[in-house]
Amino acid sequence: MAIKWINYDKLDASAKLASDTPADLTKVMAGAEGAERVAKYSSKMAAGMAFNYAAKNVDDAILKDLQKLADEACLAEKFEALYNGEVINTGEKRLVLHHLTRGQLGNKVECDGTDKRAFYVEQQERIAAFANKVHSGEIANEKGEKFTTAVQIGIGGSDLGPRAMYLALENWAKVNGFFKMQAQFISNVDPDDAAGVLANVDVAHSIFILVSKSGTTLETLTNEAFVKDALKKAGLDPAKHMIAVTSETSPLAGNSDYLGAFFMDDYIGGRYSSTSAVGGAVLSLAFGPEIFARFLNGAAEEDKIATGKDILSNPDLLDALIGVYERNVLGYGSTAVLPYSQAMSRFPAHLQQLDMESNGKSVNRFGEPVDYVTGPVIFGEPGTNGQHSFYQLLHQGTDIIPLQFIGFKESQQGVDVDIQGSTSQKKLCANVAAQIMAFACGKSDENSNKNFAGNRPSSIIIGEKLTPEALGALLAHFENKVMFQGFVWNLNSFDQEGVQLGKVLAKKVLAHETDGALKAYSDLFEI
Amino acid sequence: MAIKWINYDKLDASAKLASDTPADLTKVMAGAEGAERVAKYSSKMAAGMAFNYAAKNVDDAILKDLQKLADEACLAEKFEALYNGEVINTGEKRLVLHHLTRGQLGNKVECDGTDKRAFYVEQQERIAAFANKVHSGEIANEKGEKFTTAVQIGIGGSDLGPRAMYLALENWAKVNGFFKMQAQFISNVDPDDAAGVLANVDVAHSIFILVSKSGTTLETLTNEAFVKDALKKAGLDPAKHMIAVTSETSPLAGNSDYLGAFFMDDYIGGRYSSTSAVGGAVLSLAFGPEIFARFLNGAAEEDKIATGKDILSNPDLLDALIGVYERNVLGYGSTAVLPYSQAMSRFPAHLQQLDMESNGKSVNRFGEPVDYVTGPVIFGEPGTNGQHSFYQLLHQGTDIIPLQFIGFKESQQGVDVDIQGSTSQKKLCANVAAQIMAFACGKSDENSNKNFAGNRPSSIIIGEKLTPEALGALLAHFENKVMFQGFVWNLNSFDQEGVQLGKVLAKKVLAHETDGALKAYSDLFEI
Repeated sequence: MAIKWINYDKLDASAKLASDTPADLTKVMAGAEGAERVAKYSSKMAAGMAFNYAAKNVDDAILKDLQKLADEACLAEKFEALYNGEVINTGEKRLVLHHLTRGQLGNKVECDGTDKRAFYVEQQERIAAFANKVHSGEIANEKGEKFTTAVQIGIGGSDLGPRAMYLALENWAKVNGFFKMQAQFISNVDPDDAAGVLANVDVAHSIFILVSKSGTTLETLTNEAFVKDALKKAGLDPAKHMIAVTSETSPLAGNSDYLGAFFMDDYIGGRYSSTSAVGGAVLSLAFGPEIFARFLNGAAEEDKIATGKDILSNPDLLDALIGVYERNVLGYGSTAVLPYSQAMSRFPAHLQQLDMESNGKSVNRFGEPVDYVTGPVIFGEPGTNGQHSFYQLLHQGTDIIPLQFIGFKESQQGVDVDIQGSTSQKKLCANVAAQIMAFACGKSDENSNKNFAGNRPSSIIIGEKLTPEALGALLAHFENKVMFQGFVWNLNSFDQEGVQLGKVLAKKVLAHETDGALKAYSDLFEI
Repeated sequence: MAIKWINYDKLDASAKLASDTPADLTKVMAGAEGAERVAKYSSKMAAGMAFNYAAKNVDDAILKDLQKLADEACLAEKFEALYNGEVINTGEKRLVLHHLTRGQLGNKVECDGTDKRAFYVEQQERIAAFANKVHSGEIANEKGEKFTTAVQIGIGGSDLGPRAMYLALENWAKVNGFFKMQAQFISNVDPDDAAGVLANVDVAHSIFILVSKSGTTLETLTNEAFVKDALKKAGLDPAKHMIAVTSETSPLAGNSDYLGAFFMDDYIGGRYSSTSAVGGAVLSLAFGPEIFARFLNGAAEEDKIATGKDILSNPDLLDALIGVYERNVLGYGSTAVLPYSQAMSRFPAHLQQLDMESNGKSVNRFGEPVDYVTGPVIFGEPGTNGQHSFYQLLHQGTDIIPLQFIGFKESQQGVDVDIQGSTSQKKLCANVAAQIMAFACGKSDENSNKNFAGNRPSSIIIGEKLTPEALGALLAHFENKVMFQGFVWNLNSFDQEGVQLGKVLAKKVLAHETDGALKAYSDLFEI
């Protein structure tokens, strides 16, 4: 079947969905029917996890229509075209190949005279060899001493994903004997960022990872200069303390200012680059290449699941479709991501970029304005912390915010205390279970201030433990979810033209080529 | 004039505002008129800062109607009633006294037989004396060695505000000679939180600050047990390493298990407690009581400004009113908080609680359902980081998100590099100036993918440098903004009944007193 790239509102299924009656959670989640839904509305993910959507406003009829939507919009076929190397990023005329960093889902993809899968594997192997040498001390500082810290210098996708992944595995690695080096991150052009990090690291034993695909990112080059300055002031040779992660055509590649360079390419967007060399270098240095490989395996396993056409056995696709239903039919404007895991504290910030930068668009892939809403606002904090913060609005505010819970049966570190008859981990799990039901069913109260209307939808991904495999699967799940939603909305999810104008104007300010209000603001800042 | 507590949609001014034509930023911010707006639409704040609202969809006519709204809704009078000790928290029948922790705006407030201002000052003095003794070594560990680290154990308001304030001043204190002790924070009931923090602190030289107003917060008591366990395992006496911040009637008060107890009371909500003993203990230990006092002074100065009736010279009130206009007239559902300061990295998370927990309500202060939207979703990350993340959606998404920028002319640490003719700090400032204009005026492009529609509203608070005074003023600004918005919407912004149901259900799960879907979820987690 030839793939049709048509707008969401031109699909028959979108009209059908709009005429369906949403499942009322206060009814369907009550009593025995509710228990049945929890058992039935569950879809297997990689790494032993499951996506449970019992507490979403769907029923068998709506699921059938979501399947029709998936089929009519050729979602599986579009994913197939993507992983087989079609030019899916039409705006920039590029392939979209982040899946190839963790596996080969379809045909061999050749581009620029290269087998791209082989290219990504080669970079992983080069990184692994480098990391092993750093860990063994074969690559060491000027005094022949081992490096103890890896400092990533990057912004956006070169920062958020790798940082979130590092934090997610840091304590797990420590208790399981996989912790090799501390990682730190410098991202902001604010000089207080670099100065603050550098004041707290032992630069003589630090290896700096400069990450910029183009090799021209203002923040990153500025911070490179900052770091080089600090190294020189400490009497150290910057070239002995720095590596680059960049594209082969960038000014950073093959530069003798670095201990080595590892490559990505234009077919991997920054926000999709955690499984490329961008995440690979820092994670392999921090935890060892074997752990990074396990992380990739989890992502690859989830990607395979995402190729399925049956939405009930493809949780990435199903999650995407339910999200579209909530956004375009139910009219909800934002989604909260709520991992019940302190280790995932920065995972919502990564998803915020992934989702909002991919699908925060007003024109379709052909540049035509769309007549429907696209990507929502994404925000979130770990539970139970959020419960003592913004959950008040989620429970009793005037807008309904769909929720994306994540939880694990076991803690990462296995250190726990038993208080009032239960461990902290059991309390954590009890809280997320309780929240789902409080949101779904609410509670009537004569005191309207204590009344909970309920019918506030949520899903939950449940895993055994946050391991590298589970983390990889979670990352891939959301990458695939965002991709499928972009397909439904007929967007190009892989460019980001909306970030350009600000850059252009900032340059004008610095060059003092401004007038009107822009000059007035510049004057306020005494630029 | 007697204060009228009436719903927003019953105010004449609300209908008038709905009939006004919003200022089109693509027009009014262009050319000379734009520059004039930047000069004119600015309001002085404390600590030498200014709130600039040139890039909001208001003009003189709308500002006049916002003044009418303020007058008709008796906003200044309601604030006056609040700081003079009326029972503004009607749901819990409590006074609302957080302003008294930093100054006396009106009459002496006597309650429970106590002059409340004197009570808060007494606690500050007790904390100051304690902190000074810790710093001098008069209060030391079992071996007579100085404490080097303060670990706050608290959640929600006992965590987010103090943590955000600590991070905002940490590097400033280090370069200015005010850094006394490192602070760490344990909040989540997730055992991986406490285990992770404890693995990274030197418990023998740590003083733990247990913060719970009621003395019954599940997470905090669980984490206390966790910490005591760790201290005992290290052969240390927990009573020599812990202090409590709590109410005088709590089980933690007067308990010999602690080195000391410092008090707050029921008249200060958790999310408004950063200037009480809740923030006071950890900030005084970390930076010294003098720095905490400077922080309070900044807040007190801003509070005074907030008492004014003229909206043009009361930036807290004006910010609140513009927010209501955006929410209820223009229909925008969320607001992004974007500090161009890495030190303020957790300030948006604090505001998220402050705002969403205060005004995420569907019933008015008399318990009657309201027929209009109330508090928005609040989210944000520091710039320029956000520019490389979710700004794509802010610029080109289908929904408009009002923006709240914050920026400073100078960096905190004064360490900088000059690249391509400008410092990092200048680049940072140039970026925020550029973003305001990119959002306001947009840019036409024949390639619709590169088209920016503009008319996306923002305000900016500009300061010289992020000092303790500036931080206090910023905190107070947003506390007062949220308070005024609650008044306009006729809400009780000082209770949080929406967090109760989840707690009740979680207890049932742990007691295995569940059935239906709640039991099914509990079983999935093997609780």
